[in-house]
Amino acid sequence: MTTLLANATLLPCTADMPVVEAGWIQVDGETITATGSGEAPKIEGAEVVDVGGDIVMPGMVNPHCHMAMTLFRGLGEDVDDRLYRYVLPMERKFVTPQMVRTGTRLAALELIEAGVTTVADMYYFEAEVGRVVDEAGIRGVVGQTIADFDPPDHKSIDEGFALTEALVAEFAGHKRVTASIAPHAPYSTDIAVMNRVARWADDHPDVPVQIHLAEMDSEMEWCAKTHGLRPVEVVEKAGLLRKGLICAHCLHVSESDIEKMAHAGVCVAHNARSNAKAGRGIAPVEAMRAAGIPVGIATDGPMSGNTLDLFSQFAPVTMFQKLAGHSRKPMPAREVIRMATIEGARVLGMDAAIGSLEPGKQADLIRIDVSAARMQPIYDIYATLVFCAMPVDVRDVMVAGKWLMRGREVKTVERRRAMRDALQIAREFKAEMARIDAAG
Amino acid sequence: MTTLLANATLLPCTADMPVVEAGWIQVDGETITATGSGEAPKIEGAEVVDVGGDIVMPGMVNPHCHMAMTLFRGLGEDVDDRLYRYVLPMERKFVTPQMVRTGTRLAALELIEAGVTTVADMYYFEAEVGRVVDEAGIRGVVGQTIADFDPPDHKSIDEGFALTEALVAEFAGHKRVTASIAPHAPYSTDIAVMNRVARWADDHPDVPVQIHLAEMDSEMEWCAKTHGLRPVEVVEKAGLLRKGLICAHCLHVSESDIEKMAHAGVCVAHNARSNAKAGRGIAPVEAMRAAGIPVGIATDGPMSGNTLDLFSQFAPVTMFQKLAGHSRKPMPAREVIRMATIEGARVLGMDAAIGSLEPGKQADLIRIDVSAARMQPIYDIYATLVFCAMPVDVRDVMVAGKWLMRGREVKTVERRRAMRDALQIAREFKAEMARIDAAG
Repeated sequence: MTTLLANATLLPCTADMPVVEAGWIQVDGETITATGSGEAPKIEGAEVVDVGGDIVMPGMVNPHCHMAMTLFRGLGEDVDDRLYRYVLPMERKFVTPQMVRTGTRLAALELIEAGVTTVADMYYFEAEVGRVVDEAGIRGVVGQTIADFDPPDHKSIDEGFALTEALVAEFAGHKRVTASIAPHAPYSTDIAVMNRVARWADDHPDVPVQIHLAEMDSEMEWCAKTHGLRPVEVVEKAGLLRKGLICAHCLHVSESDIEKMAHAGVCVAHNARSNAKAGRGIAPVEAMRAAGIPVGIATDGPMSGNTLDLFSQFAPVTMFQKLAGHSRKPMPAREVIRMATIEGARVLGMDAAIGSLEPGKQADLIRIDVSAARMQPIYDIYATLVFCAMPVDVRDVMVAGKWLMRGREVKTVERRRAMRDALQIAREFKAEMARIDAAG
Repeated sequence: MTTLLANATLLPCTADMPVVEAGWIQVDGETITATGSGEAPKIEGAEVVDVGGDIVMPGMVNPHCHMAMTLFRGLGEDVDDRLYRYVLPMERKFVTPQMVRTGTRLAALELIEAGVTTVADMYYFEAEVGRVVDEAGIRGVVGQTIADFDPPDHKSIDEGFALTEALVAEFAGHKRVTASIAPHAPYSTDIAVMNRVARWADDHPDVPVQIHLAEMDSEMEWCAKTHGLRPVEVVEKAGLLRKGLICAHCLHVSESDIEKMAHAGVCVAHNARSNAKAGRGIAPVEAMRAAGIPVGIATDGPMSGNTLDLFSQFAPVTMFQKLAGHSRKPMPAREVIRMATIEGARVLGMDAAIGSLEPGKQADLIRIDVSAARMQPIYDIYATLVFCAMPVDVRDVMVAGKWLMRGREVKTVERRRAMRDALQIAREFKAEMARIDAAG
């Protein structure tokens, strides 16, 4: 089965980030087999889609998310102690396989509608996340959380590892779902446990490791008090600062931390809105990238960042670096889109397969309509994407050669059911919030 | 003619910022005549619109814009010297009444689609702006720029005043278009000219005065060097720091500046994205509001801020204050929506007529659909608006009792013509940019 997308403004997101006017792209089965500009080749039996000048670009990569937390979206907004007041008690009470399935399904719907085709998740009952990702047709790195704080799905570290082993077994050989292990953070996963994860990871070189790192002042203080070290140094001491480690946040990283991180070959998921909404600060993205660390653009969970689309992150990502650099120049629009595509793929260790439109790669691509008044005129298509485009402009989404959305119609997630199930759980959450607030 | 909107999540944006479930609102002619909750009254001959639980709230107020600059949207992005390299030479060459009309029409289309019903503009050939605002059916404060730098529409200050007088005469008594005078900024409008504006304004108490103020480091330096003063002090010395002065930006304001501003009774248009994109800094919005200065949320011109909707400003507005305050608490979502509605109206001196949904006020209102996956569930409707809503969620827009948009169909601006005319001028701009770049 051959599909030809013709008459596109093609953004292949290859090294030079070119813009191919009147571009075309050929997809055979799951794979991109050719791209070019001008008239598309005639191929018998091919489905030809004239995209009428719309952008065709790689599906976006969201390298840090807690999908199931859609159900907590906007809960406890503007409240400084919301983590201990609402989130942790409610997670302990309400997080079940069914809740995870329901929240993740709502997230999958939103991700597809926003043109995100690959997501890295870390949460509880992660096999449920993997199953929903599988059904939805997107690509996912699904990380089983390992933590000391009596999380909802494991009473001991041994149980956490057992869940991880089961996850790895369930998705062994899966083309789109990659099992992952996720020690929660230096302050919530004992150094001995992180070391155990590191040794386990030695035996499972194909299982990506995810961690929250250097996110909070309280984390800095805890690490200093407990270990006399900075968070990056704690992870290093645990033997976990290793090639391919996916580090979320990395706000509080010093020059020497960045050197260690670059030397070790770790990758970073930058969560601009989540960090700023909590008043935590601005991650030194320019410095990390200058040191050679791949940095992707992530949303964090929807309780922290509200939406799961990358468009809402684009302006913050570049504005924060411009504010920090006191200039218009830092983080040009083109680099933002690079981070959202090929660099995000690199963060997840998947850049050989996805993240750019090149022959031999998986056909993960999106079509974006640029006809809205707010997007015109266009002088720099990358600036248009970064500052004017919104999820609703994504018309079509393809993953591994399969259409997941066409003309804004998502084919793989049943909207009515996803919404109905989510709202039913949200009603219970509201009642619980009222009880917590009444208790003072 | 009576219209009843029933079954609404009504956000009247009155003092306590309440949320009225199952709310209704009655409009007779141009005016809101009643609001309530529960079953809507039966009124013979009334058009009843069941909005199915959608939000109904006041149309939003954008208190600082250069509408015609849509034609420059995204031009010279990420270039530090773009003002002198591209903008000023191109404005001198290309700004004509026809260009202003074309750019403003594209802006009007975008504003209506985004639920902005009132805009304050300052540019050149401002009568054209007033005419387009009139045709489009929105409300506008249209400010004729007065400046020393040989602007496109006046060769002398006398000519600038003559244009202003003509503007005032043309729109005298107009219900929706308010003529305004706009001395450009302390560094670009001589102190004697600002003083002349102040005296002229004494004779024209109904004409709002707009100015750019305390926006740039270079402005601070210029004011210090030329006058030994801060920008706010220069305006004070000119006699222009007066009740109702609409001050755009106000990034670089000290505690004593804020005191002076509050004492004088000026108002502020905050341009979060524009300021951040230029790497200029974060305006002390919390401090200004705490001092009693009304602060509205503005977009600036689309060359600086790209889009004209307030939704794109909401997250930055609150995130920047949270970053500056190092906490989740500053600028809660509810306050952001207050600023976008009634407080923005106060900035323009129009809060007796618009900005909230109350009997006796003009029927300027919008309907917002909250059914998108990215908006659900809803725990705090204000947080949903601030962090999840987008212009596309605005379904209907009414100004002075007249529908300007229904079901996303704008009735007062012809889309094809607006887009075609804009793209034609953009082609000339692109050619000029290429010439400038070729010249080095």
